[in-house]
Amino acid sequence: MTVTVIGIGLIGGSMALALKELGLASRVIGVDTDPAHSQKALELKLVDDILPLDKAIGVSQLIILAIPVNSAEKLLPSILGQVNEQVIMDVGSTKKGLLDAVADHPKRGRVVATHPMWGTEYSGPEAAVKGAFLNKATVICDREQTDADALATVESLYRSLGMHLVYMNAKDHDVHVAYISHISHITSFALANTVLEKEKEEDAIFELASGGFESTVRLAKSNPAMWVPIFMQNRENILDVLNEHISQLRKFKASLEKENYDYLQELIEQANGIKRILK
Amino acid sequence: MTVTVIGIGLIGGSMALALKELGLASRVIGVDTDPAHSQKALELKLVDDILPLDKAIGVSQLIILAIPVNSAEKLLPSILGQVNEQVIMDVGSTKKGLLDAVADHPKRGRVVATHPMWGTEYSGPEAAVKGAFLNKATVICDREQTDADALATVESLYRSLGMHLVYMNAKDHDVHVAYISHISHITSFALANTVLEKEKEEDAIFELASGGFESTVRLAKSNPAMWVPIFMQNRENILDVLNEHISQLRKFKASLEKENYDYLQELIEQANGIKRILK
Repeated sequence: MTVTVIGIGLIGGSMALALKELGLASRVIGVDTDPAHSQKALELKLVDDILPLDKAIGVSQLIILAIPVNSAEKLLPSILGQVNEQVIMDVGSTKKGLLDAVADHPKRGRVVATHPMWGTEYSGPEAAVKGAFLNKATVICDREQTDADALATVESLYRSLGMHLVYMNAKDHDVHVAYISHISHITSFALANTVLEKEKEEDAIFELASGGFESTVRLAKSNPAMWVPIFMQNRENILDVLNEHISQLRKFKASLEKENYDYLQELIEQANGIKRILK
Repeated sequence: MTVTVIGIGLIGGSMALALKELGLASRVIGVDTDPAHSQKALELKLVDDILPLDKAIGVSQLIILAIPVNSAEKLLPSILGQVNEQVIMDVGSTKKGLLDAVADHPKRGRVVATHPMWGTEYSGPEAAVKGAFLNKATVICDREQTDADALATVESLYRSLGMHLVYMNAKDHDVHVAYISHISHITSFALANTVLEKEKEEDAIFELASGGFESTVRLAKSNPAMWVPIFMQNRENILDVLNEHISQLRKFKASLEKENYDYLQELIEQANGIKRILK
């Protein structure tokens, strides 16, 4: 089948690579508003050719929407106005806003809203990685709103990528990702700013930073063009989680200020409970 | 040479493995207050034998102190009371308290205070890893307080492990590690508690947690027996950094509350500055 990937960056580019490698797409067309990205995607052979959006839609069976979530929300209704039997697979990090925007659209059934749980702190076509999605989870949201054939196409595609499927409604998805992904990014951005603000000896950071620091701060390299829209879309859930996170940090602060080390011990033992979930 | 390792856990055990593997120690004696750890260290061949502390000191040329920093501070003066020409190499995560405790000791010169910048979230003899220290940095603190031969022995040992040496005074060391290591652990503990407190659907965490979450939260598995003493010893520096970190998080919160996305963009761009330091 012919697949169009709109947004040939980290996710779209990795998806394009996987579809070609596994023989799931006979032709991959790239659509990108950034000419430099389009050029790079051709050079890196992520896509076979670059077309304007309208032309690409007409010749594709599957359209993968892999642009920042605010742009996706704006673009999706107009794409739906142009499709017949095509399947549109969205891969963004938030879901409720996007699906609300097309809830009453007569072509709503052609949209399969998904979130493959993979990413890195890098962006753009150069960030595309082979084998990115293998053994990871993909969330499919509100599947009952989706035409059976469109759902089957997308499920089969993700299974071929070696992913396992998790079904959820859009609202629950957005709550869960606030905890599992978005707060980690805010923490990491804030940690980077803490260090950059006060630790003026950058040489010392460079010399001394070991694995622990690198792993907690690496997400701070993430691209604002992707993350500002995610935080906008999931603002309320993120604020809930962020308030809780600040109050958890205040408990550590209180235990240190009061030199209450039994309490500090308790807080750490409680945090160790994460071992139940992450082996 | 015969080396005694006091505390055969993550760091002491990995150090024992490296010394044997590289032929730097002809015999490694383990000392540990926990009989189960001693037994395990023998089984895993981290050490050749287990002795009581006084006996071990008498027959060793090098004594490596690898126990929690509060215990090290208590034990070091009594070890110094028993040494002649032996070298004592401390490998703890904080330095000022320990060195203040022996500042006026007539044998102070036998102590080389070091901090190899490597660790994992695991602990105990089973956590010992081969090749742990290769290509990492080691800090050596207040070297001018140390006898030349003792310093030379330890420098040569670390170079043989493939580490590069960084020299610093104890006070600066403790400030830098508050930024580069200790705050990452607090953030990670607090993040784990945030998620465990509010995200009741542990199955969802388990299914959805991707690389980003795992990397920011993995330090939350760390052992309180090691970390409570570090936080006690470095309390003031950590409180400074923690206050700054909470105020950085509040900026993210304010930008979301006020829907000031230009400011959010700015905060993220500022955080991206960490790329200058961590490639």
